[in-house]
Amino acid sequence: MTVPMQTMTETKWTFRGNGGLEAASAITVRGILDQVMANLNGGDRRAIVPLGQGDPSAFPCFRTARVAEDAVVDAVRSAEFNCYAPTVGILPARRAIADHLSRDLPYKLSPDDVYLTIGGTQAIEVVVTALARPGANILLPRPGYPCYVARAALCGLEVRYFDLLPDKGWEVDLERVEDLADANTVVMVIINPGNPCGTVFSYQHLKEIAETARKLGIMVIADEVYDHLAFRDTPFVPMGVFASITPVLTVGSLSKRWIVPGWRLGWVATNDPSGFLKDTGVVESIVGFLNVSPDPATFVQAAIPQILKRTNEEFFSKVLRTLREAADICYDKIREMPCFTCPKRPEGSMFAMVKLNSSLLEDIEDDLDFCVKLAREESVVVLPGMALGMKNWLRITFAVEPASLEDGLERMKAFCQRHVKKQHQRSIRSLELYCNL
Amino acid sequence: MTVPMQTMTETKWTFRGNGGLEAASAITVRGILDQVMANLNGGDRRAIVPLGQGDPSAFPCFRTARVAEDAVVDAVRSAEFNCYAPTVGILPARRAIADHLSRDLPYKLSPDDVYLTIGGTQAIEVVVTALARPGANILLPRPGYPCYVARAALCGLEVRYFDLLPDKGWEVDLERVEDLADANTVVMVIINPGNPCGTVFSYQHLKEIAETARKLGIMVIADEVYDHLAFRDTPFVPMGVFASITPVLTVGSLSKRWIVPGWRLGWVATNDPSGFLKDTGVVESIVGFLNVSPDPATFVQAAIPQILKRTNEEFFSKVLRTLREAADICYDKIREMPCFTCPKRPEGSMFAMVKLNSSLLEDIEDDLDFCVKLAREESVVVLPGMALGMKNWLRITFAVEPASLEDGLERMKAFCQRHVKKQHQRSIRSLELYCNL
Ligand SMILES: Cc1ncc(COP(=O)(O)O)c(C=O)c1O
Ligand SMILES: Cc1ncc(COP(=O)(O)O)c(C=O)c1O
Repeated sequence: MTVPMQTMTETKWTFRGNGGLEAASAITVRGILDQVMANLNGGDRRAIVPLGQGDPSAFPCFRTARVAEDAVVDAVRSAEFNCYAPTVGILPARRAIADHLSRDLPYKLSPDDVYLTIGGTQAIEVVVTALARPGANILLPRPGYPCYVARAALCGLEVRYFDLLPDKGWEVDLERVEDLADANTVVMVIINPGNPCGTVFSYQHLKEIAETARKLGIMVIADEVYDHLAFRDTPFVPMGVFASITPVLTVGSLSKRWIVPGWRLGWVATNDPSGFLKDTGVVESIVGFLNVSPDPATFVQAAIPQILKRTNEEFFSKVLRTLREAADICYDKIREMPCFTCPKRPEGSMFAMVKLNSSLLEDIEDDLDFCVKLAREESVVVLPGMALGMKNWLRITFAVEPASLEDGLERMKAFCQRHVKKQHQRSIRSLELYCNL
Repeated sequence: MTVPMQTMTETKWTFRGNGGLEAASAITVRGILDQVMANLNGGDRRAIVPLGQGDPSAFPCFRTARVAEDAVVDAVRSAEFNCYAPTVGILPARRAIADHLSRDLPYKLSPDDVYLTIGGTQAIEVVVTALARPGANILLPRPGYPCYVARAALCGLEVRYFDLLPDKGWEVDLERVEDLADANTVVMVIINPGNPCGTVFSYQHLKEIAETARKLGIMVIADEVYDHLAFRDTPFVPMGVFASITPVLTVGSLSKRWIVPGWRLGWVATNDPSGFLKDTGVVESIVGFLNVSPDPATFVQAAIPQILKRTNEEFFSKVLRTLREAADICYDKIREMPCFTCPKRPEGSMFAMVKLNSSLLEDIEDDLDFCVKLAREESVVVLPGMALGMKNWLRITFAVEPASLEDGLERMKAFCQRHVKKQHQRSIRSLELYCNL
């Protein structure tokens, strides 16, 4: 080098980081979990119990369908899909997804209604960005999925929150939605089956949501990344069923139902039998955005028709059985612990929301503090509710091997017993006796 | 439905598309090529000759290394990589890429200097967004790669163009760079080996670029997506070699060297031995942006160490041999055609820039018109230079099977002969004779 190093510090560099990015990414599930996990005690010889993230792919009982693996391997081996794909996705995959989704709808989606994305994550990016415009606002559920908040921030959409009501089975507070909306509100987001509440909305409630949206002149983003993961009496109904009431953009993914979040394959579907998404330029914006965005791997796209066609009912029902069993373990064990309240037995997705009765606990400041200390002392990882806009709640992922889940919950119980305030110990003991423990 | 359909049109919908997206995506290589290809004549029984896009993966002579396919298949079969990956990429892949890149550098990159991305496309998104701030501007080469323009528009960076000089072997007009830069200029982009000019910058020129950047206090984004695709005397030198002169963000990808653009695996590398990218918050912005962005497929990430380790020299040299042969065919044939001028025999990448002497041609308005009519009449697809900021130039991709390339160029010749102005026909004929044709 001819330029001596010391003059480098003297140079007045003009560049610096884009501060907006750190702000937007400050609250993400992964970010908060990293924070919690930084407190894990390497000295603990017990296995870590990961109840933080919705990714059970590491557990043998949640291994994806063999036919899905085969489909991807075949696509790689063919060497026909090493090429770039069209920005909206390859036609056979779009057609297969359109047909797949149409089975649950009163009308038929065409391949042109489906856009392939890099998981549900990019699908969220696409739909939120496509609807952004100066001064507009978006209605998000609380508790919700923080990715929407980050994405809205990045494209300058104002965020307004409506509550999901724990006392009403986590249904949407539709009165509040009406209060929140104004002429600049463009869309409301629902997540069904629900992350983080483990709810499955009824047909009737979904219809009310659609009618409220229609009344307000806004559309609905339906995040159905957990589609069909409904393991009790309430069946999964896609929001697209109500698309003749209000236009719906559906966010979907292979990640959860096939338990392959690492494959990064999702989609946006336009449920729009009346053509409003076309007329208002939303479809054009989606295409425009995809034109300048990265794509999912072409060979994974190519595997889609086989994956959708060949995965059999047995695979799905085994997953549902395991999830139901795990949800029951989770709910029943949590009910044994007086320092928690779980408003509803989970019916779908992979999560339960649990209220922390922190007044019962000594030296636990709040949900984050709880999770940090739980990680440190018991090697159990749980998501603090603050990551989802719910201070002093926890999100527990029950989608883990049942034995591991029981172990984790036992450790949580031991943790709570250790940290309970002295003056509560006697009454809690009798409460526990009362609950037959 | 209880709400009658006709009232749907009466509803005053608040949402509409995000107009900014269409603008940003108006000029993309794929967009313009789609426009050209819409004119292909389905009735032509000859094969389409695709000289538009840098994706030779469909040609048997450009099939990727078997070991690379094996590595991906093994990762899928292991079922260990169906999980989410850390947002920056999995450690073994980051380490493998760091080691791989370090071989050509005077210092060693650490895994922390490497961020995995969804191809070079997302790498561009990351580096441009990480440097954006209100009022800032970015210097881009003309001709260049339109993805930078779109991305800059999306994050509000003003774009200023410096020329690559055809008469100086497409080197950067560094004087112009100095004129263009002001206190709000944060970065200049170079693409080496060059898309679209087929150049490989010399060590000396790269050093001058670094010194100019240093003088201006700006950093360099080095797009090395075509790294090592240098098939003549000038060797490929990574810009990171000069990172002690000015900090460098390198954009890389498997797409071109391994001929797997559909695998969607790229990277950003921070070449920053003096730590300025950390100090100025650029690294933090990169991480922040990746936290809220989609990731490359985990099993492709997992395949990286094997791909980098096992791909043998034979594969690379065969690709280089084929590219050189193709580049020669392209350059020599183009020189036979008086309606074209190609300032330089390509030395690297997959492209040649060719000036259209449209004054010789009848009923051809400009480069786009030329490409549209060429597609219609000869089923040959070529990129109009306007897509790259160079009106009345063409970008020809020579990275196709040589026989196909010859065929395509013959058809271009026939096309030109057919469209040449009557008054030029005689002189062109003698020119052709003079060139021994
Ligand atoms: C509600 C919700 N939407 C979207 C996503 C993202 O989906 P994917 O993992 O396919 O990117 C998730 C992932 O956890 C989610 O919980
Ligand atoms: C100069 C340049 N940079 C980046 C890219 C994008 O790379 P990838 O295909 O890996 O996304 C390309 C693709 O053609 C390119 O030509």
